[in-house]
Amino acid sequence: MTAPRSCTFCAIVAGEIPATRVLEDDGYVAFLDVRPLFPGHTLLVPRNHVEVLTDLPAADVGPLFERAQALAGAMEAGLGARGSFVALNNRVSQSVPHLHVHVVPRTKGDGLRGFFWPRQRYASDDEAEDVAERLRSALAAG
Amino acid sequence: MTAPRSCTFCAIVAGEIPATRVLEDDGYVAFLDVRPLFPGHTLLVPRNHVEVLTDLPAADVGPLFERAQALAGAMEAGLGARGSFVALNNRVSQSVPHLHVHVVPRTKGDGLRGFFWPRQRYASDDEAEDVAERLRSALAAG
Repeated sequence: MTAPRSCTFCAIVAGEIPATRVLEDDGYVAFLDVRPLFPGHTLLVPRNHVEVLTDLPAADVGPLFERAQALAGAMEAGLGARGSFVALNNRVSQSVPHLHVHVVPRTKGDGLRGFFWPRQRYASDDEAEDVAERLRSALAAG
Repeated sequence: MTAPRSCTFCAIVAGEIPATRVLEDDGYVAFLDVRPLFPGHTLLVPRNHVEVLTDLPAADVGPLFERAQALAGAMEAGLGARGSFVALNNRVSQSVPHLHVHVVPRTKGDGLRGFFWPRQRYASDDEAEDVAERLRSALAAG
């Protein structure tokens, strides 16, 4: 896909906007988020402009997440983090419409919880089964 | 790795604990989280007991996240979600020490934000460069 002229991450990939790079190779660039949850919070992007995960060619999924895996290891080995958080937003809450994987160093007692959103419960097993069936059908339709 | 007898997700994979399954194949199982952020919130796990992403063999990273990609698509196609959130916690905030990818349907105005944790800023470019260099060194040491 041609990069939109306005895409901030395409501009970072192209070197038109400065960023502190952590990793770069033929297909991917990772750089520090300028407003980190914690120092070391890194954004990993494919060089090619892809908006969301479902737009990424299947052949690129492994390479992208192998790099996320390496970054998760580097949070511990390089920064002394106790663990990490690896996440991506598709469309909703996605600040920049260029696929990016957040890799964030975590430390026990750092004040964050992985998910502190209010959790729900299914009203019944039937409700859960209905939801699962819709997902299974969508997966089968591929 | 041999499954610890106490691992909840190994027990789900083995069918010893019931779960509403969304996807299953030779290597992976996905099932509904019983306490979803939103209905359809799915947990994707490798059948083999692996604790965190960095423990997953590189050859399995692509297959795992190709399934996460398919699930992200199913949130939209099957549930009418506007987008999705794909995330995993390594060690910190990881409720069950068996690698699991959360795939959560998202809708605009659903009241969640991808990251509503307080964000920081680097005190200086030098601080950012220092952090990046530690990550680059860790990646190079691999």
